[in-house]
Order: sequence, then structure tokens, then C-alpha cells
Amino acid sequence: MNDAEEDLPSAPPEPGEVGLVEPHDFVCPQPFRFESGQTLPGFTLRYETYGHLNAAHDNAVLICHALSGDHHCAGIHALTDPKPGWWNNFIGPGKAVDTNHFFVVCANVLGGCQGSSGPSSPNPHTGRPFGLAFPFVTIRDMVRAHKLLCDHLGVSSLYAVVGGSMGGMQVLQWGIEYPTFVRRMIPLATTARESAQAIAFNEVGRQAIMQDPEWHHGDYPKGGGPRVGLAIARMMAHITYLSDESMDLKFGRRKTAGVATPPGAATPSSRKPSAADAGSTTPASGTSAAYTFDVQFEVESYLRHQAESFINRFDANSYLYITRALDHFDLTAAHGSLEQAFAGVEAATLSVAFTSDWLFPSAQNREIVLALLRAGKRASYAELSTNLGHDSFLLESEELYSLVRGFLTR
Amino acid sequence: MNDAEEDLPSAPPEPGEVGLVEPHDFVCPQPFRFESGQTLPGFTLRYETYGHLNAAHDNAVLICHALSGDHHCAGIHALTDPKPGWWNNFIGPGKAVDTNHFFVVCANVLGGCQGSSGPSSPNPHTGRPFGLAFPFVTIRDMVRAHKLLCDHLGVSSLYAVVGGSMGGMQVLQWGIEYPTFVRRMIPLATTARESAQAIAFNEVGRQAIMQDPEWHHGDYPKGGGPRVGLAIARMMAHITYLSDESMDLKFGRRKTAGVATPPGAATPSSRKPSAADAGSTTPASGTSAAYTFDVQFEVESYLRHQAESFINRFDANSYLYITRALDHFDLTAAHGSLEQAFAGVEAATLSVAFTSDWLFPSAQNREIVLALLRAGKRASYAELSTNLGHDSFLLESEELYSLVRGFLTR
Repeated sequence: MNDAEEDLPSAPPEPGEVGLVEPHDFVCPQPFRFESGQTLPGFTLRYETYGHLNAAHDNAVLICHALSGDHHCAGIHALTDPKPGWWNNFIGPGKAVDTNHFFVVCANVLGGCQGSSGPSSPNPHTGRPFGLAFPFVTIRDMVRAHKLLCDHLGVSSLYAVVGGSMGGMQVLQWGIEYPTFVRRMIPLATTARESAQAIAFNEVGRQAIMQDPEWHHGDYPKGGGPRVGLAIARMMAHITYLSDESMDLKFGRRKTAGVATPPGAATPSSRKPSAADAGSTTPASGTSAAYTFDVQFEVESYLRHQAESFINRFDANSYLYITRALDHFDLTAAHGSLEQAFAGVEAATLSVAFTSDWLFPSAQNREIVLALLRAGKRASYAELSTNLGHDSFLLESEELYSLVRGFLTR
Repeated sequence: MNDAEEDLPSAPPEPGEVGLVEPHDFVCPQPFRFESGQTLPGFTLRYETYGHLNAAHDNAVLICHALSGDHHCAGIHALTDPKPGWWNNFIGPGKAVDTNHFFVVCANVLGGCQGSSGPSSPNPHTGRPFGLAFPFVTIRDMVRAHKLLCDHLGVSSLYAVVGGSMGGMQVLQWGIEYPTFVRRMIPLATTARESAQAIAFNEVGRQAIMQDPEWHHGDYPKGGGPRVGLAIARMMAHITYLSDESMDLKFGRRKTAGVATPPGAATPSSRKPSAADAGSTTPASGTSAAYTFDVQFEVESYLRHQAESFINRFDANSYLYITRALDHFDLTAAHGSLEQAFAGVEAATLSVAFTSDWLFPSAQNREIVLALLRAGKRASYAELSTNLGHDSFLLESEELYSLVRGFLTR
């Protein structure tokens, strides 16, 4: 299933790199019933695989992506494409998740917007995007859909399920939902129940989107819609993925030069620019460049750039659906207690937290392991000292690699 | 100057309470030159006072308010008004700042919107609000304007300057700008330089306002303007004033009943509501109330309520101006080093930080005191253990009261 080897023999992968990969679509023709009770007659999942499924069909490692991630987690899509998958430092021949030994699978979540069925997919009844007519999605729905993909791929059991943030929630749900199918869980930088603070940040992002006059109650053409609201949501969320310390190290109070375009403003939109939009946003006239509401600090420029990039690849309705799925995630409420939630788990667990993660703090990760241990399960907890915030799980870390490598080979 | 005693003898204050108070306006007729180089021919400051100025005119305590605060920090404006000033627990006869001994002064900042001159004040050249024609404001401008008020009131020196958050920045600026005029500084939950993370949150709030189509480059009628953008900004900022722990204790994951009005939506505005605005925001039909983008968790309802209340009392342009003043605050850059900034200070300082404050964390408050000590000044640092976040400085705390009382009486 490694596209580089099968489809493009003239371009062998670099040593240590997954190399060229191609996404595939799994079209599930059977009706799917969501937790909400709503149904779809079928759905599509976009996915990638790296490495080979062995004869016993039991060497698959499933990678679960976070809110803004997708199925493209390793390798490159073209030799001219310098940007590899989002977890390329973690997955590949000889890497922490070793594609010489494992058959790695990663799929865009149900409700997403990178090729899997979601609110931006065409509604067969109208020919237009589903919008809010798409069924409400939960973390459990995402996992159940991905199970159908695993079955389709002929996977007999998952050697491991790995993911950070929302990916970590899916990992836990996998272990609970399919106890005999999952042999190892590696939840990173995650939680067993979304906290009030995290719900609050999600709600502000949703309000920014839903109050954008371009949202139109979710009914907008593909590529259009509430780009400004989505940019605001992303800028704010991005702050929660970093840390005070990492932002001070990375940007401090350094100033930038020049006037940047406000996020979302220079993009196709039916919003009419006012005459003032053309100019800079500086009070009165005759003041120095230091006195302006235009971008002035590097951290502002960085956030705008992040937002601009995000709104060109992400659908605002998917952002609503997926953040609501996060809000709803609460294994304690769903099972009475976290111990009860884990009562049937057969997998061994390695949970990793990061000291500077204030979105899903260490204590919330530790709670998962304590509950697993109280339920009599095999579980280990590691807390890595970083200053990079929630995104630590995505960044280069020999400490993380060796922990995961050790756990996957034992 | 106690309005309750002078103007309304028939309604004596409750024991321990400041009682009825009235705001006053100080109209400064002289031209004021801002740090930006811009000038105003004069300005107005709205202020309140409690207690009496003594014969030596040296018992005044100046209270400096934070971003969303105002001049009304103690007492009530009417016997029928149940809501006292924002620091009424802290200021009054026999309280931490004892109005039996001190003449307490609090004024709305320059650039504000509660009666002091700011972007919502009428521009004499146009008869309409200044908007972005109002000069750029810095923390130092705020302090210099308030010094003119102190002179007007006949204050010979300030017994103490007290404030939290942005108020704490003003406190530090007072000690630096007027070293012989200020005898005690009490900066609480503050910083000597706005961090990258704090700038980032401010920037997201400003973008929410400036990208609101009702902003019109700052040119909107009083009471109108970018109410939705201001609501988004406030919701987000409010999260930064609390803590993960306090939000979990206060709201947890409790659900609320009913459909709330989206913040800013049900208010006078030229934005046309879409047909969909009338209904609830629930995907598809036939789903249970659990599956909705409407308000569902108590924390969401709380944030919306906070935002709704804020946009009815605060001007969006003032929000831009004041957050930019925060961003610009950097005593290190302005003076070469923090020790040099404090080189001329004559006041004694009590700095108080709160363990759960992640907006202006303990380390940033401790840094102030260390620099004062290195510069050979009298300075003490206290770190109070709370779980209430940045807003801890505003909340009831016998620990804080006794520290301040002790510092003011020694």
C-alpha cells in the first residue's frame, strides 16, 4: 500500500522518509447511524497508508488526527512539494512509528473537510453542500466510521492507536469501543473530558464564525462563507496551542515592518470592502508608525499568517461540528465513571503529557492513567518537560520518540 | 468631597459602606500633548472621590482601574441601585483602603468611554464621535492626565497609588513619572511589559472588532458600531481573566436549558438578520436538544451574558485604544532596563501576585520587585494562593485586605 513503491517505482523514498504517497477514498455504501440518531445512506473517508500489512493482518498502527489535522500525516504528495505530512517527524522507516514494521493508516475524520464526508460535502438531495443538514458528529462516530475503514483494509486487529489532542480522545474511545481489536493505546496531550475552559474557547470560536454575516446559517458555497469569523477563531485557538514561554521566546515584543492584510479580508467574499479598508489603520494623521492598529508586533503577523493559511484549507462548518464533538467528549458522563469507562479495555496504554500544555494540562492526562490503573489495566504515564505548549506533541522530541518506540517494540 | 455626606444628608451611608456617591467631571482647558506627538486642545476626566482630603492635602489614595473598569470603584449611585462600584469590597470606612483616613480618588482613563475623553467623545470639528481621529493613548498619557486631576483637586502628594492589571501598569508609571509625588505603590496582578501572549489575545480581540462590518473604520454612531465583534473580544478576554480550575468549579460541564440570544445579535444594529437567525442552530431536524450549536453548557451562557452586558457599556474604539496602550507598555524598552526604569523611584512598593493568574503570571510580578530591590528601593512581594485567575485581585480576600491595610498604615 506504499504508493511510492507501488505506483512510482522511479522515485524511491529517501532513506528514513516515507516518500511519495497518494490519498485514497474509502466509500462506505452502507447506511451509517450517528449517535444523534441521524443517518447517512453512506459516507466517504479519505485516508493514506504507509508500510505494508503483514500476512497476519495485525501490524496496523492507526494515527488519529487533531481538530485541524487530516489524513496526510507522513510523506509528500509530489516531489516538488516541500511540505510533508503533519507528523512526518514521527512516522517513517526507522522513525518512532516505524513503517518498516508497521502498516500505518490515517484517515480524515467523519465531519471533516479534507475529503471525508462532512458539512462541506455535496448533499445528494440538493446538490449543494450539506451545511447544517449534515448529521451531528461525536468522537465515537468518528471512531466507528474509521473502524469500517480498518475492516475494509483487511486489518484483523490494531497493533496500536496513536493520537494527540482530539486524536487522543479517539484513541481512548477506540480502546473502549473495540476492546479486542485494539492492543495498544497511545493518547498524547489529551483529556477524558473537555474542560469548561476548553469549551469556552471553542464557543468563542464558534460565535466568531456563526456571527459572521457570511455564514448564512451554514448555507454558503464551497470556498466562500465566514472566512473572517474562521480566521478569528483560528487566531484565538492558535494561542491556546502555544505557551506564554514559547511565544516570548519565539516572538517576544519584536516589531514587524509593513502593513499586513487583515486575516480573511483579501479573499473572495461578498462582503463589500469599505473605502477605508484600502488604507492603514492608524489613528489620526501625522503619527509615527509605532502608533497604529495595523500589525505591529511579530506575534500579530504570525497569527494572521496562521489564520490566512487555515481559512484556505478548512471549512467553517466543519470547525463548528468538530469543536462541538470535542465539547461533548466526556467519558465519565458517558459511563458513570472513568474506571467504568475503561472496565472493558484490553489494550496496554502509554499516556504522555507535556508540562507546558495548558489546554489539556498534565493533570487531565494523569487522570486517564490513574483510572486505567484503578480499573486493573496496564498503563504508563510520562510527563515530558517542554516549553512549547499543547503543540509539543507534534514537535521534534527524541524523548517522545524513544518512549513511543520502546512501547511499540515491547 | 463625600457626596453622601455633603449632598444627601438624609441618606447617611451604611456603617462600613461608602454609600451614595456622584461622579464629577474635571474639564482640563489646557492643550494636552500625547506621547504620539498628537495634541488635544483640552480634555475631560470623569472621577469620583470618597473620604476627605486632610489639611496637609497628603492623604490621597489614587485607585487606577483596569481595561474594562471605570471611575465608579466604591459606593452606589442611587439607593435603588443594588450594584456598588467595582472595588467596593476593598474601599470604604474601615476597609482595606479606609475612607475614614484616606481621600480616595478614582478617574476613568483618558481614551476610555465612561465620561473621560476618548474616541467616543464628540469631535468639535465634526460634531460626531472622534473615532480614529482621537489621539493614540499610552499608559503614560493616562497617568499624566490623572496628574492634572490630582493637581486640580489640590492633592500635594499621593499617599498611595493602587491598581491591578492595567491599573498596576499605571501605578508603576506613576512612581517613575512623579517620584516625589508618590509615596507608596501597590501594583497588583500586573506586569512591567506586556507579553507576546497577552498581545496576541489583544490582537484577536481587535481583529474581531475591526473586521466586524459595522466597525466602518471606527466611524459609527454612539451606541452602534461593531457590537458583535466587541462581544467576541470580550468573551475571549473574559476567559483569560479566570482560570481552568475556577471555571471547572463554577461551571464544569453543566448543561443549561433553553436557547440564548447570540451575543450582540439582539441589539440595535444595521446588520440585517437572516431568516435563519430566528430559529435555533441545530443540525438537521429531529435531533435531540443535546445536538446543537446553540448555547448548551452553562459556561457558554455565562460568557454570552458577560459579553451582552459589556457591549452595552463599552465603546469598541476605546477597546482598540486601551488594548493597544497595554501592548505598548514596556518599561524595560522605554528605559533600557527595569532597574533603570525604577532608578528615580522614591515610593515604597507592595506588589501582590496570584498563583492562578496566567494572564500576568507571578513571575512577571516578582520581576518588578526584584528590579526595584536591585535598584535599591523599598519593595515587598507577596504571592497569594488562589484558584480564581487574574480576577483574583478584584475578589474578596482577607489575605489581600490585611496586606494592603498593613502596608498603608506602616
